[in-house]
Parts: sequence; C-alpha cells; structure tokens
Amino acid sequence: VKVPWIEEASKASKEKKVLVGVSGGLDSMALLHLLCESGFRKVIVCHLNHGLRGRDSGGDARFVKRAGEKLGFEVEAGKIDLLKRIEEMGESLETAGRKARHQFFGSCGRKYRCSRILLAHHADDQAETVLWNLMRGSLGCRGMRETTQLAMDGKAMRVVRPFLGTRKSELADWMEERGLRWREDASNAVSDVVRNCLRNEALPLLAEISKRDVIPNLVRAAETDEEWRGLLDWAVAGADVIDPQGRLHTAAMRKLPDVLKRGIFAEYLRGIGISKIDRNLLDRCAGLLDIGNAASLNLPGGGRLRRRSGRIFSEQF
Amino acid sequence: VKVPWIEEASKASKEKKVLVGVSGGLDSMALLHLLCESGFRKVIVCHLNHGLRGRDSGGDARFVKRAGEKLGFEVEAGKIDLLKRIEEMGESLETAGRKARHQFFGSCGRKYRCSRILLAHHADDQAETVLWNLMRGSLGCRGMRETTQLAMDGKAMRVVRPFLGTRKSELADWMEERGLRWREDASNAVSDVVRNCLRNEALPLLAEISKRDVIPNLVRAAETDEEWRGLLDWAVAGADVIDPQGRLHTAAMRKLPDVLKRGIFAEYLRGIGISKIDRNLLDRCAGLLDIGNAASLNLPGGGRLRRRSGRIFSEQF
Repeated sequence: VKVPWIEEASKASKEKKVLVGVSGGLDSMALLHLLCESGFRKVIVCHLNHGLRGRDSGGDARFVKRAGEKLGFEVEAGKIDLLKRIEEMGESLETAGRKARHQFFGSCGRKYRCSRILLAHHADDQAETVLWNLMRGSLGCRGMRETTQLAMDGKAMRVVRPFLGTRKSELADWMEERGLRWREDASNAVSDVVRNCLRNEALPLLAEISKRDVIPNLVRAAETDEEWRGLLDWAVAGADVIDPQGRLHTAAMRKLPDVLKRGIFAEYLRGIGISKIDRNLLDRCAGLLDIGNAASLNLPGGGRLRRRSGRIFSEQF
Repeated sequence: VKVPWIEEASKASKEKKVLVGVSGGLDSMALLHLLCESGFRKVIVCHLNHGLRGRDSGGDARFVKRAGEKLGFEVEAGKIDLLKRIEEMGESLETAGRKARHQFFGSCGRKYRCSRILLAHHADDQAETVLWNLMRGSLGCRGMRETTQLAMDGKAMRVVRPFLGTRKSELADWMEERGLRWREDASNAVSDVVRNCLRNEALPLLAEISKRDVIPNLVRAAETDEEWRGLLDWAVAGADVIDPQGRLHTAAMRKLPDVLKRGIFAEYLRGIGISKIDRNLLDRCAGLLDIGNAASLNLPGGGRLRRRSGRIFSEQF
C-alpha cells in the first residue's frame, strides 16, 4: 500500500509520539503494522472496549494488547458499557461510540502528553460518509478530512486519517501478504444500521447499476468538496469588504457571489462570538444587503445586525 | 405549484416566443398547461416522435397536437426512427434520444426564429442526474442547470428548465386538481436502463435507509455545486496573475488554492483555442509552477506551455 501521509511522516516525524486508535479489526491493525514497518517507534496503541461483542470484546482487547506489545509499542486499554450509555443518553450506537472513543482518546492524549492521533478510516468508509452526508442534506458531498483539529474530552487533538485514499481491499491484501492477523468484525461492532445498509446494500447497488467501482468517485467528490471549501476560505480571507471600523461595506459585498457573501457573514458572526451559525441565518444576513429589506435583524443569543449608511455592523441591545 | 422562473417570465417576457419540448407525459404537459395559465401566448409546442412505443408513439403525437392546438399554440411535430439511429451510431438510448431531440429543437428554433426552449426536467430528474454524475466521477455533484446555453443542430439555444426545483408529485397533484390529462410513459420511453434503475431502485433504497426524502437534498447538492463553480468563475475573473504580455505570473499563481490554479489554466488554455481540457491536463499545467518540474509541457493539438523567467506562456512548435 502506498500511503502518502505515512511516507512523509516517516521522514519528518517518526521519532515523535503518536496515538493510534486500534479496535483490532483489519483497518486499524493494518495501520499499526504499517507504522511499525515505516519506522515509527513511539506509538501508543489506544484500544477502547465498548463491551458490545460479549466474550469477543475481551478477546479483541487481549489481541490488541498482545499485538501492540509484540511490536514494542505502549498499549492503553479502556473499557466502557456502551449500551448502558446509549440507554442513558438516547444516542445512536454510532454517535455514542464515537463520543466514547473521543473521550477515551482525549484522556490518552493527556496521559501521554500527545496531541496527535491516527485513525484507520479508509476510502470505503469515506465513500459511505459522503453518501450519508448527501442523503442527510446540508453538508453536500462532505467527507472526513485527512487532517483535522478536534477537541476530545477537552483536549485539542490533531486527528489524522492516513488511509482515506486507501481501499479496504488493499489493506487486506497487504496484511495477507505478510501473514498478519486481525479480529473479524472488531471494527464493525459500532457501525449503526444506516452505515451497514449503506455499505452492504446501497453502495453495491450503485456499483451494479453504474457497472463501475463507485468508491473512488465518491472519495474524489469529498476531495473536491474540500477544495471548494478551501477556495471559499481563501476568498473570505482576501475579500476587501471591511472598513477601518470593522464594519462590512455593503456596496463591496453586493458585488460578490452569494456563497462568498454567506462565507463573509459567517466569518463576521464568528468574530463577534456567535457559534450557532446555519444556512438560514446566513441567508437572512445576506438579505440585509438588499435595501428593500428591513435594515436590521436579531441574532441568536441577543444583539443584532444593522445596516446603516452603507455599512453593516453588530450592536448589543 | 410555485415555479419562480415562470412567475418572473410571465411578468417580463410572456409576449415573446418560446419553444417547449413536449413528449405528452406528465412533466411536459404540466409545463404546457402552466405556461397557458400564466399567460404565455406565443408558445411553440415541439414534439419529437422517437418511434419507440409502437402504436402508442403515434398516439402520443396526436395527443400532443390536439392539446397544443386546443390551447391555441403552434405545434411542430417531428419523427425519427431512434432504434435505427442507435444501430448506426452505437450510442445509448438516452444519448441518442437527447441528440435527436436537440437536433429537432435546433431546427424548430430556426424555423420559428426562436432561441429559447423550455424543457420539463423536474427535481426528481435532477436528483437522478446528481446521483448518476456522482457515480460516474469527474463531475462531482453536478446537476442540470436551470438556464444554460447550448448549440442545438448548430443553432445557439437558451435552454431553460423551470421545474428543476419542483417535485414530480407536485406536478401530478396540480394536473389532477384541474382534471388535466397526460400520456403515461410517454416521457419514460427514452430513459435508459441506468436511469430507470436509479429512479426505481437506488433512490427508493437510499430514502428507505436514511428514512427521509432524499430528493430535495440531492437537488440542493446540485445547487451548491453550481454555486461553487460560480465562485470559481468569479475568482478566475478577478485573479491578478496575467502580465501585460498576456503571460501567467508564476509567483502570483503559486499563492493561489490549487482549484483556482486549475481554473486559471483552464481559462488560459481556452483562450489559446484548446478545447479538450481535462483534469489530468490541468494538473500537469499546475505542475509547471513547481520549479522542480520540467519547464515545458506539450499541449493537445500541438503547441506547448513553457515556464521561463517567472512567467508561463504558450508557444507553437
């Protein structure tokens, strides 16, 4: 397997500590072995036992511990009762599982003073994510990002997913060539019904209908989506629409594409401490540019946005 | 049904001639009746008999002729043998059908001296198109555009699809409320296997899995995609990277996001008459910006692009 992130990191930072989330399934075991083969030495294997697979859960934990130690890595194992947690919190299996892992990874980060964590999500997972986001609306073709900054249990972590461009089948071939083992189903235990249906029904059907492998195309759609968002960030940063008093210049704003107007308003709102920013709010903000509309609008959490003398600015009540 | 384009056009241009593609199916009959109800008078009903539905094909043609004339519109009917054409050209049913209609519409445009044609593609068609483009790759979430400029049989036509945001079920309700009739299957005759499978299998499965109506979300993804492309066009037009000699300034180019670099190269290549521009070519062009790469590359159709003294420019062999 050719994994650009690992190739680069093995040159630049393989002496640095790195956490790895390891379920014991194919994906994360491949990541673990590939890190070892690429010369990483300060790996901390983080395994959370969700308690979902009965006796197999304990087997997964023992398998990961043994494999990690054999590679000379530190192993940090945690355990929770996810079903109990779901009952208490009323969350979906997948959401609760993700939250529990993030909490666990955050605590590992603190314990080992390490803010970098690798996760083994691969191209097939990415395709499911894209399709799922597309079905749900609002996020377009967004997928997971290769590198992202995330607060886990209050600790700022840099999450890296080196396998996003790598197929699951490539990982399996790589492992089999080396006679390496993994625990079947260990990583599927926390997939919820929707994800399993997307994986086992929707994606195969789409491949059958279109007579091609659709996974790479969905992965590419996520990459394209990320590039579009990058273009927007770039355009927002370069937009010359703020006057010396920090107010938005309406005449300059009106000349911009709508998507950029919304991007600038989002940036402006974040700047004045508004966190709940959705499309509806941004459309209303953009509406302020239209002189035919009311000259002010109320913001969530108090305060308002006002248009006066060719400028838009915020004011407190 | 609330159809923004028709509402606006009925104020601005309902006295102008407009061609409408009418199969006799629900979608196009709804368009025809809505145009009439909205006060359009100079409508030319264009019906192409593809000869695919046996005796029903003739029935469709007679139905459209009668309905059009009853509304006081001109009716232009054409006929081809699509299957024969497919045999000769080796195209898919859908491609051959589209080409044949475009040719027919172009000839109608010339005959009636009218370059505006309305087509009845609706939100459900748009969702299929988005999903299909996503499966095929390369086009991302692109859908059909509400307004687009297209050469049909050599004639430049402005194609408008007013129903892209309107559900098929809304059209059916609207028609039934008024007791208006249409020909079942008339518009499905030229759908190919892929489109039928997307419509009848994939989209229902995705709706079932996600427990929601996915059509509006796919339609919105197409709108978002169009906004992204608009942002790119805006950024390309505003990029200050061309020197007085018309050469690209490499230092200025390097600061830009990759997607914008490619957009600028695409614009540059179109400007020097290159028509076959794909992602691979654009990536190679962007590679010219890297001083570690070769300083020139060959362009399709002869000529080449060269980097010299901080500039990139084209030259003939």
